[in-house]
Amino acid sequence: LSLIGTPENVDAAVRELATELEHAKLATVQWADVTLQGVVDLSSLDALLMQKGWALTLVSIQWANNETGSIQPVEQIAKRCRELGAIFHCDGVQWIGKMPTDELSDPADGREIPTHRHAVSGPSCDLLSFSAHKFHGPKGVGVLWVRPGIKLRPVIAGTQELGRRGGTENVPGIIGAGVAAAEATEWLAEATQRRVLEALRDRFERMVLEACPGSLVNAAASTRLWNTTNIAFPRLEAEAMLLGLSERGVFASAGAACSSGSLDPSPVLLAMGIPEPAAHGSLRFSLSRMSTREELDAAVRVVAQVAADLYKTLP
Amino acid sequence: LSLIGTPENVDAAVRELATELEHAKLATVQWADVTLQGVVDLSSLDALLMQKGWALTLVSIQWANNETGSIQPVEQIAKRCRELGAIFHCDGVQWIGKMPTDELSDPADGREIPTHRHAVSGPSCDLLSFSAHKFHGPKGVGVLWVRPGIKLRPVIAGTQELGRRGGTENVPGIIGAGVAAAEATEWLAEATQRRVLEALRDRFERMVLEACPGSLVNAAASTRLWNTTNIAFPRLEAEAMLLGLSERGVFASAGAACSSGSLDPSPVLLAMGIPEPAAHGSLRFSLSRMSTREELDAAVRVVAQVAADLYKTLP
Repeated sequence: LSLIGTPENVDAAVRELATELEHAKLATVQWADVTLQGVVDLSSLDALLMQKGWALTLVSIQWANNETGSIQPVEQIAKRCRELGAIFHCDGVQWIGKMPTDELSDPADGREIPTHRHAVSGPSCDLLSFSAHKFHGPKGVGVLWVRPGIKLRPVIAGTQELGRRGGTENVPGIIGAGVAAAEATEWLAEATQRRVLEALRDRFERMVLEACPGSLVNAAASTRLWNTTNIAFPRLEAEAMLLGLSERGVFASAGAACSSGSLDPSPVLLAMGIPEPAAHGSLRFSLSRMSTREELDAAVRVVAQVAADLYKTLP
Repeated sequence: LSLIGTPENVDAAVRELATELEHAKLATVQWADVTLQGVVDLSSLDALLMQKGWALTLVSIQWANNETGSIQPVEQIAKRCRELGAIFHCDGVQWIGKMPTDELSDPADGREIPTHRHAVSGPSCDLLSFSAHKFHGPKGVGVLWVRPGIKLRPVIAGTQELGRRGGTENVPGIIGAGVAAAEATEWLAEATQRRVLEALRDRFERMVLEACPGSLVNAAASTRLWNTTNIAFPRLEAEAMLLGLSERGVFASAGAACSSGSLDPSPVLLAMGIPEPAAHGSLRFSLSRMSTREELDAAVRVVAQVAADLYKTLP
C-alpha cells in the first residue's frame, strides 16, 4: 500500500494513522507538496501517482483545510486518481454541511462553485468522510461514504453496520446527524446565505487587520470556505491571545482542535511558508450559519483589545 | 499472546475479534470448557493458564451470560489470573447497572451476592467493559474500565481520550451514560427492588412452563441475573415464535442480539448440552427495572397463545 497525502492537507487523525501504518510496515507514506497558499501541488501529486510497483495506492486529501479553510482541487485530484487507478479518500469534514456537495454551478446566480461536481452522486471520489458536529449535529457521529465496489476491512469486527463496524450503534446520534443533514441541505439550497456570511467574514478580517497593525490573514489568496479565517498576530503567543480572548467570551483556536494544548506552531502554517513568528501568533476564528454581524463586531473589539494589551508587554 | 475464553462465555463481539486475531496470527485462542449450566469449568481454565511459553495471556469471560443470565465465578477467575500472571478482561455488559459491582454482601439483609467483590474498586479484574444502553442509558456508549498500570494500544490513533482512542467524543452520549449510571447506582442501593423483579421473573417462568407443556427454562440451575430468562419450546422454530410474539406486542430474542437474523441455534445453548430441537426453539425474555407484574402476566398469555398455535401446526 502506498499512502499519499500532504502534511498540510490531512487532519491529525489521518496523519497519525498514516504514521502508525508506516511504523507497522503496513504502508509507505509519501507526502505531496503544497503551494504557499496551502493548496496541493498537482504536479507533485502526479509524480507520486506515476510511481510503479504499488499493489494499491490511496490518496487522502482534505476538501478544505481545517486551519485555513483553503479549498483543494479535489475534482482534479479525483480525475487523476481515477485515471491512474488510485483510491481517493476525500476528507470532507470541513466542507460537508457548509458547501454544496453535488453542484458544479449554483442555480441561484450561475456563479461557479469550484469544480467539485458529483463528489458523492458521481464518481469523483471513492471515500468521503465527514462529521455531524460540523453542521450543528451531535458530536460523536462520523460518516463515511463508500463508493459502491470499494471493500473495506473493518477496524472493529462485528455484525453491525453490515459487518463494517461492530458495536451497538449510536442511535440517537445517528438520528441527530440525519436531522442536522436535512437542515443543512435546506440551508445550502439558498446560496445567498453563505455569501452573506462570507462577506461578514471578509469584513471581520478587514476590521481586525485595521485594528491590529501588523496582523495578516493566512492563506488569504486561496479560495477559502466562508466560515474560516486564520489570522497571524506576528510576535504574539497564540496561547496568550486565546487566554485573553476566552476571558472576554471569544473562543478561537490555535492550530487544529486535535492538537490543542500543543505549544508548537501549526505544521500546516509552517508548511505554507509562513514564518515562525507569524505562525506562532496565528489564530483561527470560525463562523457558523448562525453568526451575526453584531457578534463579529463585538469579537473585533475584543481581539483588538487583547492584541493591543499583549503587544504592550513585548520588548 | 494467548487468548483464553469459552465460546459460551464471550459475546459475539469478543468471539469474532478472537477469531480475527487468530487468523492474523496475532494470538492463539484457546477455549475453556463450560459446565452444563453454562458456567466456566475452573479446572479446565486452570489447565490452560498453567501452559507455559506465552509472553502474555489474556482471559476474557463474561460476568453474566447474555443469553441465559448465568453468573460466572469471576472473582475466582480473577484470583487465578492474578496468581498466574494473566490479564483478566471481564465483560460486564449484562451485569453492570443490574447488579452491584463492588459489594460482597448486601447491607440490606446480609444475603450474600455471589463473590464478585471489588471487581472495580479492588484488584479483581484488569479490564471491565460495559454498555450504557444496558441500564437505560443511550445506545452507542461503551465503557472500558482499565486497571491502573495496564497499557493498551489504541485501535484508532488520535489525541482524544488521552491518546486511547482518536475521534471527537460523543459528548451527549457520555453525559447520558453518566446520568444513567447515577440513576442505576441509586436503584441498586436498595436490594429489595431487584429481589421483587427476580420473583416476578421466576413467576413468569412458572406460568409459562405451566401454560406451555414441554417448555423448560435453560440454565435454570445456575445462579442467574434477575432480568434474564431463556425458555425452550422444544420442536418449535424460534423465528416463528418471535414473529407471532412481536405481532402481539411481545419482543423477545433468539440467541444473541448480535446474531439476530441468524437461523442457527444458539452456540451458547448447544455448548451447554441443550439438545438441538430445544435450542432451536429457545427464546430469551428480558426484564428491566421498569417491568411490572401486569406486563409479565400479559406476556405469559401471549406466549402461551403463540406457542399453542404453532404446536397445532406440527405433525
